[in-house]
Amino acid sequence: MMQVPLTVGSLLERAEKFFSKKEVVSRTLSGVYRFTYKEIGQRTRRLASSLEKLGVKKGDRVGTLAWNHHRHLEVYFAAPGIGAVLHTINIRLSPEHISYIINHAEDQVLLIDEDIVPLVERVKDTLTTVKAFIIMTDKDKLPPTTLKPVYSYERLLESGDPEHQFLKDIDENDPAGMCYTSATTGNPKGVVYSHRGIVLHSFALGLADTTALSEKDSCMPVVPMFHVNAWGMPFAATWFGSRQVLPGPMFTPKLLAQFIQDEKVTVTAGVPTIWLGLLNELEHGDYDTSSLRAILCGGSAAPMAMIKAFEQKYNIPFLHAYGMTETTPLATVSTLKSYQKDLEEEEIINIRSKQGLIVPGLDMKVVSGDKEVQWNGNEMGELLIRGPWIASEYYKDERSSEAFKDGWLYTGDVATVDEEGNVRLVDRTKDLVKSGGEWISSVELENALMAHEAVFEATVVGVPHPQWQERPIACIVLKDSYKGKVEKQELIEFIAPQFAKWWLPDEIIFMEEIPKTSVGKFLKRELRARLRNYFIEA
Amino acid sequence: MMQVPLTVGSLLERAEKFFSKKEVVSRTLSGVYRFTYKEIGQRTRRLASSLEKLGVKKGDRVGTLAWNHHRHLEVYFAAPGIGAVLHTINIRLSPEHISYIINHAEDQVLLIDEDIVPLVERVKDTLTTVKAFIIMTDKDKLPPTTLKPVYSYERLLESGDPEHQFLKDIDENDPAGMCYTSATTGNPKGVVYSHRGIVLHSFALGLADTTALSEKDSCMPVVPMFHVNAWGMPFAATWFGSRQVLPGPMFTPKLLAQFIQDEKVTVTAGVPTIWLGLLNELEHGDYDTSSLRAILCGGSAAPMAMIKAFEQKYNIPFLHAYGMTETTPLATVSTLKSYQKDLEEEEIINIRSKQGLIVPGLDMKVVSGDKEVQWNGNEMGELLIRGPWIASEYYKDERSSEAFKDGWLYTGDVATVDEEGNVRLVDRTKDLVKSGGEWISSVELENALMAHEAVFEATVVGVPHPQWQERPIACIVLKDSYKGKVEKQELIEFIAPQFAKWWLPDEIIFMEEIPKTSVGKFLKRELRARLRNYFIEA
Repeated sequence: MMQVPLTVGSLLERAEKFFSKKEVVSRTLSGVYRFTYKEIGQRTRRLASSLEKLGVKKGDRVGTLAWNHHRHLEVYFAAPGIGAVLHTINIRLSPEHISYIINHAEDQVLLIDEDIVPLVERVKDTLTTVKAFIIMTDKDKLPPTTLKPVYSYERLLESGDPEHQFLKDIDENDPAGMCYTSATTGNPKGVVYSHRGIVLHSFALGLADTTALSEKDSCMPVVPMFHVNAWGMPFAATWFGSRQVLPGPMFTPKLLAQFIQDEKVTVTAGVPTIWLGLLNELEHGDYDTSSLRAILCGGSAAPMAMIKAFEQKYNIPFLHAYGMTETTPLATVSTLKSYQKDLEEEEIINIRSKQGLIVPGLDMKVVSGDKEVQWNGNEMGELLIRGPWIASEYYKDERSSEAFKDGWLYTGDVATVDEEGNVRLVDRTKDLVKSGGEWISSVELENALMAHEAVFEATVVGVPHPQWQERPIACIVLKDSYKGKVEKQELIEFIAPQFAKWWLPDEIIFMEEIPKTSVGKFLKRELRARLRNYFIEA
Repeated sequence: MMQVPLTVGSLLERAEKFFSKKEVVSRTLSGVYRFTYKEIGQRTRRLASSLEKLGVKKGDRVGTLAWNHHRHLEVYFAAPGIGAVLHTINIRLSPEHISYIINHAEDQVLLIDEDIVPLVERVKDTLTTVKAFIIMTDKDKLPPTTLKPVYSYERLLESGDPEHQFLKDIDENDPAGMCYTSATTGNPKGVVYSHRGIVLHSFALGLADTTALSEKDSCMPVVPMFHVNAWGMPFAATWFGSRQVLPGPMFTPKLLAQFIQDEKVTVTAGVPTIWLGLLNELEHGDYDTSSLRAILCGGSAAPMAMIKAFEQKYNIPFLHAYGMTETTPLATVSTLKSYQKDLEEEEIINIRSKQGLIVPGLDMKVVSGDKEVQWNGNEMGELLIRGPWIASEYYKDERSSEAFKDGWLYTGDVATVDEEGNVRLVDRTKDLVKSGGEWISSVELENALMAHEAVFEATVVGVPHPQWQERPIACIVLKDSYKGKVEKQELIEFIAPQFAKWWLPDEIIFMEEIPKTSVGKFLKRELRARLRNYFIEA
């Protein structure tokens, strides 16, 4: 067979050649813009040639601090296209971590959204490798800034070559992208994506049995493009010639609902908190969401009540998926097998609430001690994953050996496996509550609490206890209309039938807001710190 | 990223692990059998261990002479699983070519269907490398045979290990399969498939935008498993856990129609002559074909009239595809782009009758001389293809340099490309009719003739002509009910409005049957030989 490498540049080339008329809809600070793939291709090539003129060479890292829009998409292909590495930086991290990441990756150039310039200005004096700042602004003039040397993205494009050829001399195992993921303690850890990994992952996103991304789709990644390449959707959607709808900076649930309706979005992707917000918006507004063929949900476990609402009330198929920064990220998707389609509605929702089957191309096992757990939906163990789009190490980081052992990624997620091979995440290994020598799953308690009509958000953490080692405490945000009207006892009684008595939370604390991580997950670490002395002082 | 090789064995491992209950329906000489993937997996491992006991080592070729059934499927995975090479042999070739192929590939073992044993017996004394003959019979006892040493497939399985592990030490570029393709002159030419090529090709078959093969499918490959791995469907269908329906030896259109109805086949694949036969059967019988979501058709161009009948009369979506032995084979599929779905019915059929878009992962161009042709649907040139599941040479064959040049496969097919990038095959370079220095497409004339209600099959060849160099002659098989009732003039007048006058065939010859190749294509070479002196004698 021909030794043709799998490269990221070839994905865009397909869109330019065969889907030149298809559209990318992009919202920026100043409005909504539309570009064809022909235009995106020419702009990407202009950028690629400009980056080379700025001195970016094969292997160099090119950092981005940006929302989901067409310029970010252009960097997605321009950097790997010239053999450089697209380094997407999570703008929600602390300035200290952002500075660490840029220096650790040795970024040569930073491409920055206008509204993120102040954040970069705060850390600029700590940056040791950056040789140029490019501001991705709509405006003709640059905003006033202390960054230098500083360039206007659109001005650079003007002087770029719209027919610039992508680098041919690329090995498919060469790095194409990288993304840092928060660590429980210490600095974020870097994951490097190869050209091969990104292309194989794009194949996986197009399979009929996973997310079935297609030319027929209008694809709106809500998950940020600075977070694991927006789950790889911009790469795959471009390859397949899908229409893309990029929702830009600081969007609201209202804006998402309007985009879904107006742009006839067929598939969208994001974390559960986004969908909780959308659900709330749909309940108050009047939107036509009939174009949606799938909501892809990952990042943390989606509550069953929410899945049920989308599936049954709004008739929107809900695709529960699982992955990590280390897995590019698609690892599992929950879909019904052909012989399950006639099951009772409740059983179908139950299957949909699992993280599902490992996708073709990857392998998994769930281990407890040194043994694989039984596939009975009960036995818990740590989920291990292997495959050609799974990281093999953290970038120049001594912590690699904690997660990568014997050819497997140790995910740190506790899971069960049912008879069909569907994974259900039970908890993070570190979030399990250890009570009297037994394990309690915080996630299962949360899901049960979220099913109560008054509950907007629920999270459960293990809190040190003098007698039982740890006991669970639930932190609850009530829906506005229920505030002050629901008490602890009602919620405990609501979930009691589903659990052994010793699983039930000792306490329920009502809050205005649950602290969240930069990617919208509940920040349990912070809750545990706040509640550290709860039982000890009491 | 992890360096995990793409291997054929991993495809079956997925079916064993996640789709153990799904079914393979298999018709053999003695009846219809059903096996689960769990059983297929165990039988495959038994076979793999038995092959090793017979001395088969990594890199050795294992030949098969067999129809589409479960045992053949087992060899598909057992041979590559132990690092050997699955060599499927076209049983419709001449004994001389079969002997050449077996010796040229240096097959160590042959697995043979009971009804094909006499064919192998005829050539056995010419075989120089075969060390064991295994007869794939249903029966407890072996049929009487002069082959030796000879083994019973089922007896070998009895003594095999159902938990035998596949070889781990496989590089994804190692050979996994091979298939010989007929040459215009001389011996057949061998194509070697790598593990990587087969796995990437399986990804391509699962994409929503190509054939969308899925767990939900009941997949019936009619194209023989001895012909380019039945277009790769057994590999991909196993990987995705699709139900498989293998129609066995000497099937009839009636049997196919019954299988479609009884086994609720959702997708089937084969050459146009198969579908002409099926269409004829559907017109006379009363079958429920509502389960069919796609007929995949390739091997040679499908006549528009047939596509129209399936699409409009039977409401069966017709997926016109293109590939060759050298392309594993899927290279293009004709599907409508999202913005074409509201076109007029005639225009939709016109698009469906093209060979379509190159599939994701491959690249194409159409060249005339040293220039790419315009994408205007008119300009003709030779189709060139490149990609990771395209052969780079013929196996130990000096003729490689004719087809593989500058990193491209020269397909020998003449094509146009429309504005959307869809390929339409116009002819084989060698089948174009050269009249008075201008080109006439034999395929376009054939398609026009096939649209006449009386015509069952039509083929057009260029015949030497003293004045014009060549002139087209049409060979026609009429439908039974029209025999003797249609004359030359009627057919010429029927197609005349579509062509320049000098394109019209000089002669129409009515035949009982058009000679066909071993894979069901019209054998134009033989027709040309028969008609060589037609104009010269006249």
